[in-house]
Amino acid sequence: MLYDLIIIGGGPAGITAGIYAARKKLNTLLLTKDFFGQIGSTSHVDNWPGEMGVGGLALMQKLEQHLRQFQIGIQAGEKVVSVELSVSGTDNSTDSSVGTRYRQLCFNVQTENSVKFQAKTIIAATGRTPLKLGVEGEKEFTGKGLSYCAICDAPFFRDKQVAVVGGGNAGFETALDLAKYASRVVLLERGDKFLADELLQEQAKATGKIDVLLNTELQKVEGNGRVQSITYKDLASRKMFQQSMEGVFVQIGSVPAVDFLGKLVKLNKNGEIKIDFESCATSQRGVFAAGDVTDVHWKQMIIAAGEGAKAALAAYEYLQKL
Amino acid sequence: MLYDLIIIGGGPAGITAGIYAARKKLNTLLLTKDFFGQIGSTSHVDNWPGEMGVGGLALMQKLEQHLRQFQIGIQAGEKVVSVELSVSGTDNSTDSSVGTRYRQLCFNVQTENSVKFQAKTIIAATGRTPLKLGVEGEKEFTGKGLSYCAICDAPFFRDKQVAVVGGGNAGFETALDLAKYASRVVLLERGDKFLADELLQEQAKATGKIDVLLNTELQKVEGNGRVQSITYKDLASRKMFQQSMEGVFVQIGSVPAVDFLGKLVKLNKNGEIKIDFESCATSQRGVFAAGDVTDVHWKQMIIAAGEGAKAALAAYEYLQKL
Repeated sequence: MLYDLIIIGGGPAGITAGIYAARKKLNTLLLTKDFFGQIGSTSHVDNWPGEMGVGGLALMQKLEQHLRQFQIGIQAGEKVVSVELSVSGTDNSTDSSVGTRYRQLCFNVQTENSVKFQAKTIIAATGRTPLKLGVEGEKEFTGKGLSYCAICDAPFFRDKQVAVVGGGNAGFETALDLAKYASRVVLLERGDKFLADELLQEQAKATGKIDVLLNTELQKVEGNGRVQSITYKDLASRKMFQQSMEGVFVQIGSVPAVDFLGKLVKLNKNGEIKIDFESCATSQRGVFAAGDVTDVHWKQMIIAAGEGAKAALAAYEYLQKL
Repeated sequence: MLYDLIIIGGGPAGITAGIYAARKKLNTLLLTKDFFGQIGSTSHVDNWPGEMGVGGLALMQKLEQHLRQFQIGIQAGEKVVSVELSVSGTDNSTDSSVGTRYRQLCFNVQTENSVKFQAKTIIAATGRTPLKLGVEGEKEFTGKGLSYCAICDAPFFRDKQVAVVGGGNAGFETALDLAKYASRVVLLERGDKFLADELLQEQAKATGKIDVLLNTELQKVEGNGRVQSITYKDLASRKMFQQSMEGVFVQIGSVPAVDFLGKLVKLNKNGEIKIDFESCATSQRGVFAAGDVTDVHWKQMIIAAGEGAKAALAAYEYLQKL
């Protein structure tokens, strides 16, 4: 089947695009690994309007349930590995008038499970993937005290000492999550200031449980089967310190999930898909993008959702003109 | 007091801007006539992600309650009548070094109740105002069978015949609201096609109660104390028709609410505030705008909310650089 639209991604941008595409009666398929998004791993969301203090996972489930009430194809568990442009559609008619009408741009979408789909338009809404530290012990202790997801793992650290690496919003939110369980949280930031919202920094201070260290770089994670200590460098004095520590949470940022697009669309220097901010159009006609995978300046759930709506409405207008 | 930010408007854009400004600890005041927005007059909202089939007013109340949980000044019942630029701030220091730092742009905001406020930055999020038809009887019968708000007045038309003027989404949504009560709904559209979403048009057809007329222009509303009949012209045949009708709902669009800004910011040819779609900046430094009052291409609640977040984050970054 040749779909009008394939949406890739099941975060806030993809789901909102799906809701709008369904309302516009586009023959739509949404492909996603899961409906978790980045927000699914946040324990406490205060900035989705109308939902004070909701769990990130609960909020994503509400969004998914909403989407599922519409007439739209959904295949979860399908990670897209490539999107390729084909110049003609599936129409093999030799009638040249029909041919002219239907032989439009067409995109071939392939998933990790080797399933192939075709669509006239694409919305890329794949978000971002967490960055790794690349230090000694990181790989060895992942899942054995080292985690990228506080909501998944924070409850395992009751009355324990835990380090958080990264002083942005994600780092402080993780530290706050952990402070509910851990006896002590040490937050390490390599730079000379914290990039997190003032409010989060104040909340961290108010817990009385979170120590924050600037100019500090994690060097090594060690243990015996599970994390037992970390070694970090004070970048000012260049001295090394070792501390016993039972957990490490890495929150040092993320990269846009764009590998599946190959050279189909133009990226900025950060590897984000360049979009026209009015319409979410990319450099490739027929391909739109929304949310944190794009060069939109602020990566926020409500902004991603708004951009998802824009992308679906732009795809609809584009299809009307074919 | 010189505020960091004054947000004007209490719809989805203004409220979301308020939530984000509070999280960034900006000293913020939100001024609004009410927290009704345009969405407050919609009976049934399906396209706010996570809320299937919620009442528009209930949704706006959720948003307002969320905003009120943050540290932010809120004055409802204050309609802003003017925003003017003043080149210096409230600082009267003669110390030139202090003067340079603090004598920034400052905006004087005045309300209908003659209250004056001052801020370093402004977010205009005033949305749109419904258009009037300008036909005979419109003014006379407003509130006497003629309405601009189906959610307010639909229940009064049980088992009655009602006309809806306007074939866009708002017109069809109004017709659907009315079909729950009225014995028959006639929808009049002046153009030669309906601009409403296909899904809404199908839903209208499925009620079996809604007749739709294209190329049809309402000419006159008549009655005796209350609406009793309408006269309309068939634009194809140029013939006039009179029909008995007990209600008229006008849904022919709206204009951006920008009068209070005078010549402070550049508008497009539709009178909408021109913004940089990346940052919601207007042509006036320090003034940002978000939502349906701007030239954003699609006027949708979730898009307006996303833009409100952008505007607040842009105001924050601007203030950091002062």
